[in-house]
Amino acid sequence: MAVFIFDSILPELNLVEAGLTKHINSNVSIINDAAAHLIKAGGKRMRPAFVLLAAKYFKEDIKDVIPLAEALELIHAATLVHDDLVDNSDTRRGAPTVRSKWGNRTSIYTGNYIFAHALTLLETYDRSDILEILAETSMKICDGEINQMLSCYNTSLGLKNYLRRIERKTALLISVSCQLGAMVSNAEDWEIKALKNYGYYLGMAFQITDDILDLVADEKTLGKPTGSDIRQGVITLPAIYALHHDPRREELKRFLGSPELCISEAERILDIILGSDGVDYASYAADRFADLAQRSIRMLPSSPLRETFIDITDFMSSREY
Amino acid sequence: MAVFIFDSILPELNLVEAGLTKHINSNVSIINDAAAHLIKAGGKRMRPAFVLLAAKYFKEDIKDVIPLAEALELIHAATLVHDDLVDNSDTRRGAPTVRSKWGNRTSIYTGNYIFAHALTLLETYDRSDILEILAETSMKICDGEINQMLSCYNTSLGLKNYLRRIERKTALLISVSCQLGAMVSNAEDWEIKALKNYGYYLGMAFQITDDILDLVADEKTLGKPTGSDIRQGVITLPAIYALHHDPRREELKRFLGSPELCISEAERILDIILGSDGVDYASYAADRFADLAQRSIRMLPSSPLRETFIDITDFMSSREY
Repeated sequence: MAVFIFDSILPELNLVEAGLTKHINSNVSIINDAAAHLIKAGGKRMRPAFVLLAAKYFKEDIKDVIPLAEALELIHAATLVHDDLVDNSDTRRGAPTVRSKWGNRTSIYTGNYIFAHALTLLETYDRSDILEILAETSMKICDGEINQMLSCYNTSLGLKNYLRRIERKTALLISVSCQLGAMVSNAEDWEIKALKNYGYYLGMAFQITDDILDLVADEKTLGKPTGSDIRQGVITLPAIYALHHDPRREELKRFLGSPELCISEAERILDIILGSDGVDYASYAADRFADLAQRSIRMLPSSPLRETFIDITDFMSSREY
Repeated sequence: MAVFIFDSILPELNLVEAGLTKHINSNVSIINDAAAHLIKAGGKRMRPAFVLLAAKYFKEDIKDVIPLAEALELIHAATLVHDDLVDNSDTRRGAPTVRSKWGNRTSIYTGNYIFAHALTLLETYDRSDILEILAETSMKICDGEINQMLSCYNTSLGLKNYLRRIERKTALLISVSCQLGAMVSNAEDWEIKALKNYGYYLGMAFQITDDILDLVADEKTLGKPTGSDIRQGVITLPAIYALHHDPRREELKRFLGSPELCISEAERILDIILGSDGVDYASYAADRFADLAQRSIRMLPSSPLRETFIDITDFMSSREY
């Protein structure tokens, strides 16, 4: 399914993949090694894919969009290496993190290096509006990281706080990927807006689904233990539902409010959340965002590529859990 | 003396000072607080001053250069907050660091936020060459940070490694400040080059002098203990000289090669270095870089402002130690 989705941009996506590490050429070999490790360890290359797909809507030859697609993936990678540092994470997707292999100092400067490198890729477009959008987005991502930290173990925060957190954590950069892909491809303002909205809603659906998977998928699928969010005090949508509606909500509140109990009682917390209708509720919310994504993309003229965008939203909603 | 040097740009420097925190307006109050604390805690605003002075060479009204001057100071501040984090520093210039007040996570994201914010200030110029220069410089600063880490306690590294380290730590950003100030003021290419070189050589002289002061000035002047570099295993020019030429060089080598001895024997290390001709040698090197800075600036037409640039190099060489 995943291959099918990206069929129309597969050659360009391969060029992005090859280019991601090719241009990283520091004088300090540790930075090259750490950056290459980080980038190879992976990911779904979702942001570059959306840059390329959005561009493809407006022109056949999208080779000139490749540096932009690379830049979006590198900005994403820079946030990951810093996240792993502050979270003291030893592994990401089953591979050791830069932090665990090279330490804190290398993690910080590798992140900064990759971010600065991403900026150099923008030079080819000579457009200050692209820089402005990416800088503003980066600031909001920082806001989101601090906000997520402040929200940990806080059981009184509700839906609004959660939506704001996942917007900054995930939806904004996907939204910007779609927006910029269209912007560098001479799309009209209303078309850019439609793609920007599509990316935003899809990103929201994607993150809610990811948060559900963290509660229900097994360690092998996740590449990290089930319930990692709970153990770190990150309260996601199914938990928020249970905190409001489950008969055992007082007990849950006591557990989730305590860093120690979040670890020692993780199984019991999982049990309460999965016993509530929290996962169904979150799943419903993800579907609604996927619907909004579909509505946004349907504003664009009908084409095989539009069907691909719609397929992606279906794919989001139908991920197994 | 310092006031005299900056007389010609004092109104604009005050506008920069006022603007530095004014535009930082995150939704997350911790980021605003941490950024404001970092920026107020200080510094000599050397980078904005050089942006403004360089611009003043080519035009009378330099108000449009203020965002660029602010951006350079913010990029510098972003590097400081990350440096304090990786160095585990509790104070900088006598004030508590962001790390000690708000912790690691806030330090990382405040640094990233300030850097991204600096980028938004560049939008007004709509010039991708400025972005390219700043991105390349940021990458080199990261190189330098990792290289400094790798060079700690390594007594076999010599002058070349040291010069490369201080270039990246200090000289490049001062050089770029002069270069960009001229670039946005319609200077000719050869004039931009002269100012870029001036900033580079001045930055080298400045950092060598700073490294000398770390060995000879008292804690009150420095805002940190005398010999902080030694205690952290950072081997600067006077130490490199002593490692090569002092009769006690074998003893010094043993001390400086060991993290434990760098702390327990710090007084003895200081004693050996100060007893060698290392400070004189470093002072001579700083003077030579100051001379090169003067030669670079003398390529520009004679003017009262050129005399100011020359005064600055004199001021560098005559700092008391």
